[in-house]
Amino acid sequence: MKILIIGADGYLGWPTAMRLSSKGHKVYGVDNFSKRKIELENGIKPLFKIETMHNRTKEWNKTNPKKKIEFHYGDLLNHRFIYQLVSKIKPDAIIHYGEQPSAPYSMVGREQAVFTQHNNVIGNLNLIFAIKKYCPSTHLIKLGTMGVYGTPNIDIEEGYLRIKHKNRSDLIQFPVKPHSYYHLSKAHDSLNLSFASRVWGLRVTDLNQGVVYGTETKETILNDKFKTSFHYDHLFGTVINRFCLQAAIGKPLTIYGKGAQVRTFLNIEDTLNCIQLAIKNPAKRGEFKVRNQFTEIFSIEQLAKKIKKASQKINLKINIKHLKNPRHEMAKHYYKPSNKSFLKLGLKPKLLSDEFLISEIKKIEKIKSNIDLDTIDPTVKWDQKGK
Amino acid sequence: MKILIIGADGYLGWPTAMRLSSKGHKVYGVDNFSKRKIELENGIKPLFKIETMHNRTKEWNKTNPKKKIEFHYGDLLNHRFIYQLVSKIKPDAIIHYGEQPSAPYSMVGREQAVFTQHNNVIGNLNLIFAIKKYCPSTHLIKLGTMGVYGTPNIDIEEGYLRIKHKNRSDLIQFPVKPHSYYHLSKAHDSLNLSFASRVWGLRVTDLNQGVVYGTETKETILNDKFKTSFHYDHLFGTVINRFCLQAAIGKPLTIYGKGAQVRTFLNIEDTLNCIQLAIKNPAKRGEFKVRNQFTEIFSIEQLAKKIKKASQKINLKINIKHLKNPRHEMAKHYYKPSNKSFLKLGLKPKLLSDEFLISEIKKIEKIKSNIDLDTIDPTVKWDQKGK
Repeated sequence: MKILIIGADGYLGWPTAMRLSSKGHKVYGVDNFSKRKIELENGIKPLFKIETMHNRTKEWNKTNPKKKIEFHYGDLLNHRFIYQLVSKIKPDAIIHYGEQPSAPYSMVGREQAVFTQHNNVIGNLNLIFAIKKYCPSTHLIKLGTMGVYGTPNIDIEEGYLRIKHKNRSDLIQFPVKPHSYYHLSKAHDSLNLSFASRVWGLRVTDLNQGVVYGTETKETILNDKFKTSFHYDHLFGTVINRFCLQAAIGKPLTIYGKGAQVRTFLNIEDTLNCIQLAIKNPAKRGEFKVRNQFTEIFSIEQLAKKIKKASQKINLKINIKHLKNPRHEMAKHYYKPSNKSFLKLGLKPKLLSDEFLISEIKKIEKIKSNIDLDTIDPTVKWDQKGK
Repeated sequence: MKILIIGADGYLGWPTAMRLSSKGHKVYGVDNFSKRKIELENGIKPLFKIETMHNRTKEWNKTNPKKKIEFHYGDLLNHRFIYQLVSKIKPDAIIHYGEQPSAPYSMVGREQAVFTQHNNVIGNLNLIFAIKKYCPSTHLIKLGTMGVYGTPNIDIEEGYLRIKHKNRSDLIQFPVKPHSYYHLSKAHDSLNLSFASRVWGLRVTDLNQGVVYGTETKETILNDKFKTSFHYDHLFGTVINRFCLQAAIGKPLTIYGKGAQVRTFLNIEDTLNCIQLAIKNPAKRGEFKVRNQFTEIFSIEQLAKKIKKASQKINLKINIKHLKNPRHEMAKHYYKPSNKSFLKLGLKPKLLSDEFLISEIKKIEKIKSNIDLDTIDPTVKWDQKGK
């Protein structure tokens, strides 16, 4: 298949590009480097050195001469760029990772909130129109987030919910309650995409993904130049990364608030497996298919304890520290999201293990001197005044 | 009270400005003239001559020297403009009509869809940040549309719905199913606003309004220069206007599809009354209050028959013609929206009467030569290919 990956330079985009290429697909990549630009502007770096997209693509193509990845620098906000590319390639599937992915970044202030919603929503609209015009039967696989659902007091189903009201019944898109301008942008995208499939017969799969952890895939470990990014900072860092890093350098694990807030997680290998399952099981024409993409559910406190336990196996002394929660989220809540969809398609989850955590911590220990301690603690407060 | 009206040059913005001014409020108006620019670009004109905003404000201020309206030309997309204005005025209430309001326009093609969502969603975001920064206790009254709900198979409540699922219960924002990129922009706005009130304690009233008809208010009839716009064209025209105009010139009333689609309606005087009731009954800090703003429910066919009946009283011969529906909407559907909120606050609806219709038709007859027949029939198809 011809597969176009948007956001191909990203944490997940790059490993996805290599995986699909190695599976024999013809892979095209697009990126506007907006994440690397935000890193630059904020003095943030991934922990391990990441090659430029140009060099790692060159290296991949050199070692896999029959499975070349074709990379195009460009921006979805420039509709002429994406119109031209899509009209030339006419991809069988498009995987759209190309959005500003940081909730804290979107909450810094007006400029960042507007950048996030403009980049994500309008970029996605341009892509929808490009598909409609040039390849209306292309299967669009769009990355969403479990965060759109918020933490409702009912079980979270996959995209839809049958409801009853005054003795009548309807099937609705599952209610959303996003908790940042970033998460809101994903909710807007989903409404726009659902409309486009309903009215124009587009084929769309919306993947509401949990928090992905891990940097090792079959391909990233082949060559130092194939590494994908590990973020531990206050903008792009995720909680498992932060805890492992704090454990490695003997700093207390920082929990925001009480830690009873519950989230969904998955290993990067499972992301790649889910993407491949989504490709193999496309939405029908006119279908807006929603799948929840995660394998496990933990509270932040449970995670901290897991990392503590793993660390103790290698004789690290671990403390846990609670910070005032900078985010606006429920301290304690019901949480029961479904993830049957990918399990039914055959996903065999790779669960979070002590072995994984110990290996992460050991990798970080070796590169301690690269860590910028000043970029770890949260600086963006959800309720900050006057920005 | 100091009241800022955004979109003050609009069909509803201008009558609202005069009404609130005449009630003794200090009124500030803002407009970017985007609707007049779209008219210009598409060769469309309102039926009756409309003064420039500058001249009608001048005239109002001359005849009401103690109740001056202060008008500022500017664009919400320019955040410096709205930051500066809001920081200077610190209004008690802001009425936000300032969005691209045409569903067909938003469906012309990519450029128009993107303009609509960019103008509406990002403009509204800039306004949210301006309020947060300079006047967080201001009551924001935002105009939405009944169209966000679509035509669900259950009763439409006002903004929220208590649902049960697997023996648990939650209160959700009422499900939406918008049927154009314009209607989608209003759904995005509502999610952004609901978030801002939840997290920042803003006071927001979201008015999901039906289709407004009529051009006469206590103030518009005082002076020819105070008239508000009457649109009958394929972009901004509404169905009651079109039917009255077709009746006046002996053309068949054009129903899109079978005419069994049902919509909500209200007289322009009731819009002004609802706005005043919303001002008097503000949302609390942190509250996202939703009110459905309409007084009557008709199918398009019922409306055609009403106009036919009224026309026959003045001996007009009326035919009805069905056009292929250019829109993507359900031909037949359940529809039972609630509008209790404003009735409870004391709204006395001014219902659609034969007298009103006859007076509209007679006014149109007098100015027949102004009608541009080429701009009436729908040109924008929801499912058009390749634009």
